[in-house]
Amino acid sequence: MSKNGRIAEGAVTIACIQMEPKVGDRDGNIAKSLELIEAAADQGAKLIVLPELCSSGYVFETREEAFSLAEPVPGGPATNAWAEVAARRGLHIVAGVCERDGDVLYNSAALVGPKGHIGTFRKVHLWAAENLFFDPGNVGFPVFATELGRIGMAICYDSWFPETFRLQALQGADIVCVPTNWVPIPGQAPGREAMATILHMAAAHSNSLFIACADRIGTERGQPFEGQSLIVSSTGWPVAGPASRDTQEILVATVNLSDARRKRNWNAFNQVLRDRRTDVYDEMLGANLKRGWY
Amino acid sequence: MSKNGRIAEGAVTIACIQMEPKVGDRDGNIAKSLELIEAAADQGAKLIVLPELCSSGYVFETREEAFSLAEPVPGGPATNAWAEVAARRGLHIVAGVCERDGDVLYNSAALVGPKGHIGTFRKVHLWAAENLFFDPGNVGFPVFATELGRIGMAICYDSWFPETFRLQALQGADIVCVPTNWVPIPGQAPGREAMATILHMAAAHSNSLFIACADRIGTERGQPFEGQSLIVSSTGWPVAGPASRDTQEILVATVNLSDARRKRNWNAFNQVLRDRRTDVYDEMLGANLKRGWY
Repeated sequence: MSKNGRIAEGAVTIACIQMEPKVGDRDGNIAKSLELIEAAADQGAKLIVLPELCSSGYVFETREEAFSLAEPVPGGPATNAWAEVAARRGLHIVAGVCERDGDVLYNSAALVGPKGHIGTFRKVHLWAAENLFFDPGNVGFPVFATELGRIGMAICYDSWFPETFRLQALQGADIVCVPTNWVPIPGQAPGREAMATILHMAAAHSNSLFIACADRIGTERGQPFEGQSLIVSSTGWPVAGPASRDTQEILVATVNLSDARRKRNWNAFNQVLRDRRTDVYDEMLGANLKRGWY
Repeated sequence: MSKNGRIAEGAVTIACIQMEPKVGDRDGNIAKSLELIEAAADQGAKLIVLPELCSSGYVFETREEAFSLAEPVPGGPATNAWAEVAARRGLHIVAGVCERDGDVLYNSAALVGPKGHIGTFRKVHLWAAENLFFDPGNVGFPVFATELGRIGMAICYDSWFPETFRLQALQGADIVCVPTNWVPIPGQAPGREAMATILHMAAAHSNSLFIACADRIGTERGQPFEGQSLIVSSTGWPVAGPASRDTQEILVATVNLSDARRKRNWNAFNQVLRDRRTDVYDEMLGANLKRGWY
């Protein structure tokens, strides 16, 4: 233990807040998020992840409703509230928010820290009816340097694309925070991990980075959500969760984010990111594969 | 059932042969592989996958030993034997072989069919001491059109790179056959899937393609292997296996390879391969990420 109480240079306690936003009740959702953020901070959490669209709810009925629940980032009520508690408690927070930029909406995640808004990620891969309300993200997959380490973000369906994690690992991300609203996937068998668990274990292992997923619970306008929030270490093995499918929870784990960088050498020959055969990939991703058969 | 006995246009019975090659005993390994191929064909298998380096064994002590067990592909004794049984029984076979090309060795997989040798894959990502004996593969990830469907290949550590499956999916692969020699991975917890299982479930799901992994068993010169051969459907859920960790087995599943193409539309908006944001990936994989921080 060093004198500031950290176990090691990259030690940080992470909390994923599994909650049930109510569509349309922005004030109530923000208040609930603050209550749970305070509770997580009381447990020592310094990096806190909240679900996708946790201030607005998910299942919009009309574009008018979606716009009514949207806000500028930074500067809107949800991001301002999260920035205030982050400053007061010394936190970094990643939370899903319905972002309005001019006359366009994005399904976004705001990263705020003790000094205010750090950056915004806009969901790159839109799922289903999200296409009716949101524009696809236009800021790529940014990775932000923070006191805790390098933090990237992804939202729900983004995790179905291995490129999401690869592009962040190549920018040096130590952890990818994933606000999400997972929906059921057919074929789940008793005793098997959920496909969302599988995908994040594989991505963490293959990229040697941590992943923290905060999912919502409940059924909204007929759409059920899956819970099972998850924190995965850079080895690919879960360090907390999967959480329950249906209960509000604060999932907590203390990890050393430095392990993401320190433990990439698997033996005298192999380091999983340096072993990438960019010569092969670049050649194949050239003209021949620009038009795939799919 | 159509008149030729197939359930549907893409129905095929796949067998993964989990066996224990003995390093140095090429004649014995080939004879054992033929015996197991015949047994799999007797069970109706039309596509048969054998482990990595199944004719030579894996743990070479010297370069001299590795060269003594290598052969040209096609034209060497192992590939010739597999081509003969493939012709006689009407099979497609993917099998790991120690390939010699001039004075260079490759850790290769041969694809043979009823009419002979179809193509060769050379392992792209070399693991550990393989780097002392083999050159890294120089033929990319080729996908071969066959009567059964489009067949790609990968070998063991190749599966740790999401690019391996992505590059084959983009060429229209219906199935990736994986000869492998998996070694233990730290952190396995009781009741959890093996990391190899996790990686292949994620890759199959994210790319909507089938994957058939044939692993070896046994301990060779102190190196234990993991077994747990696996056949995963294009949904990402296993259809056979994981097999045992230590027993010779023929793992069999009948699947419809056409599902890989037919079931990629997940809803009215999303098709997982077409949803790739190549605009984002291409821009990020440009100059800024050529030199990653890793």
